[in-house]
Amino acid sequence: MERYYIGADIGGTSIKLAFITEVGEIKEKWEIPTDTEDNGVNIPKDMSRSIHDKLMGAGFEKEQVMGIGAGAPGFINTETGFVHQAVNIGWKDYELGKILRDLTDLPVYVENDANLAALGENWKGSGNNVENLLAITLGTGVGGGVIANGSIINGANGTAGEIGHITVIPEGGAPCNCGKTGCLETVASATGMVRLAERRINEGNDTRLEEIKETNGVLTAKDIFEAAAQKDKEAIHVVNDVADILGMTIANLAIVCNPSKIVIGGGVSQAGEQLLQPLRESFTRFALPRTNEAAEFVLAELGNDAGVIGGAFLVKEHIG
Amino acid sequence: MERYYIGADIGGTSIKLAFITEVGEIKEKWEIPTDTEDNGVNIPKDMSRSIHDKLMGAGFEKEQVMGIGAGAPGFINTETGFVHQAVNIGWKDYELGKILRDLTDLPVYVENDANLAALGENWKGSGNNVENLLAITLGTGVGGGVIANGSIINGANGTAGEIGHITVIPEGGAPCNCGKTGCLETVASATGMVRLAERRINEGNDTRLEEIKETNGVLTAKDIFEAAAQKDKEAIHVVNDVADILGMTIANLAIVCNPSKIVIGGGVSQAGEQLLQPLRESFTRFALPRTNEAAEFVLAELGNDAGVIGGAFLVKEHIG
Repeated sequence: MERYYIGADIGGTSIKLAFITEVGEIKEKWEIPTDTEDNGVNIPKDMSRSIHDKLMGAGFEKEQVMGIGAGAPGFINTETGFVHQAVNIGWKDYELGKILRDLTDLPVYVENDANLAALGENWKGSGNNVENLLAITLGTGVGGGVIANGSIINGANGTAGEIGHITVIPEGGAPCNCGKTGCLETVASATGMVRLAERRINEGNDTRLEEIKETNGVLTAKDIFEAAAQKDKEAIHVVNDVADILGMTIANLAIVCNPSKIVIGGGVSQAGEQLLQPLRESFTRFALPRTNEAAEFVLAELGNDAGVIGGAFLVKEHIG
Repeated sequence: MERYYIGADIGGTSIKLAFITEVGEIKEKWEIPTDTEDNGVNIPKDMSRSIHDKLMGAGFEKEQVMGIGAGAPGFINTETGFVHQAVNIGWKDYELGKILRDLTDLPVYVENDANLAALGENWKGSGNNVENLLAITLGTGVGGGVIANGSIINGANGTAGEIGHITVIPEGGAPCNCGKTGCLETVASATGMVRLAERRINEGNDTRLEEIKETNGVLTAKDIFEAAAQKDKEAIHVVNDVADILGMTIANLAIVCNPSKIVIGGGVSQAGEQLLQPLRESFTRFALPRTNEAAEFVLAELGNDAGVIGGAFLVKEHIG
């Protein structure tokens, strides 16, 4: 009798759900909208109902489902599934694990969404099931997950792995959403890159980015990488500055965690080697030689599926 | 029948050894010199013989000894007890675990010495057996150990926890023994503090540190703290600079590992609150509020015994 896991990735606008086999293959995946009204109180009910409906036509019985692994963007007590806070969803001190368990009558495990994606990438993506891995997602913000001794680090009160909020500019850095200034996120996210490029435009430097911005109304990280590929000096500066700071930060993390894989994901990582090459150079400069020997940079492979696959892994890890 | 563990802390000049009870009390401790001749090839024999001799008068039988937990200053494969490299001892690709097992006929577990001290402090010192702990030793150099999910992080090739080699001054920092520049160790060690103070003297600033150095021939970290306590402006500057940089670095680490205890040890930590108070201020400024809530700064309590007690814990952890 084949067994299945349910992975759930709860985001601010939609909830990704999937039935996943024991070997980590997605049998079926679907999405439902995230109802953030009334501080997200309807979400577990919506999830439970949707899972129930999908199970009807899934071709297997509920008895074959081993449990639900869910990720949420917030601070989680992973032992109980208690969500201390998930700002984008509206949850505060919310018993997500218990509520979802009661509604579905299934074992439920909850993790921070970035940590869940790291587990997914390690299981079925580019991580290759290593014991020590660093996952960094460069999107609108910068997220991360750290696997050490084969387990994700969640920390004393669920804030471990918040790599985006490492201070990289101690004085005079740009303000971050977290309330601090000079966080990695203010530099190495798509938003951060655009800010750096706009500063160069505003300083009156000669760059085609100015024209692109005027034509399109906005500037994107992709525009910056494309301009850099076409030898635009200012765009090259931005890419190098980001790679320098990100490379040093990852080297500092690697000196502490000594990972064998460093998985780079998120929209900004679509630049591929154009980002990885200067990133490796900066990393090599700031890492201990032995740390550098162990560490391989790889691009994330699972994209938006990393979360649900990580959710399945979470169940597998707990109940086999 | 009472059971005992043997803790061993192998340093460049002496090897600390101890018989330790199941509850972590030192029954007997002693030291032997480290014979670094012939690349340290005699060390396991010396240890084995010394343990054998001490067992004679120990008042218990060898059958009551559960194993040896040994720390060495180098890069270790903790699964096998293989020492990749321990420069101060002379070992390179050295099968310490196997050799010591063969000589003593006891289970042997090996860890990096700074990691072992972190385990010791967490078991019987100021750590209080938490699941997530950061230990930082501010001595001649800066060492560290990270406990996450209840286990020490050793990493992919034994370099995890090398906190002293985090880059804190990206450009123009002082050279470090590791070959890089601007490492935390160049600022927050006793040596680093003295260097910062000497720079202030050489810059022609008015400070009583100059007189102290002339009188004593050398300057120590203790002199700097004492002068700062007596309101010497330059000494205060040095203490604050060190606390600022160290506090930010620890905050960055805490954002990633989210510890509930941050244990500060080593000679420099003897300054106590004079160091901890500005350190907490800097930490609070750079940490996420929630990371800060979880984290308590404490001074190490075990001093030079941390290693042997950690060694006993290592055995306990493996075989109960």
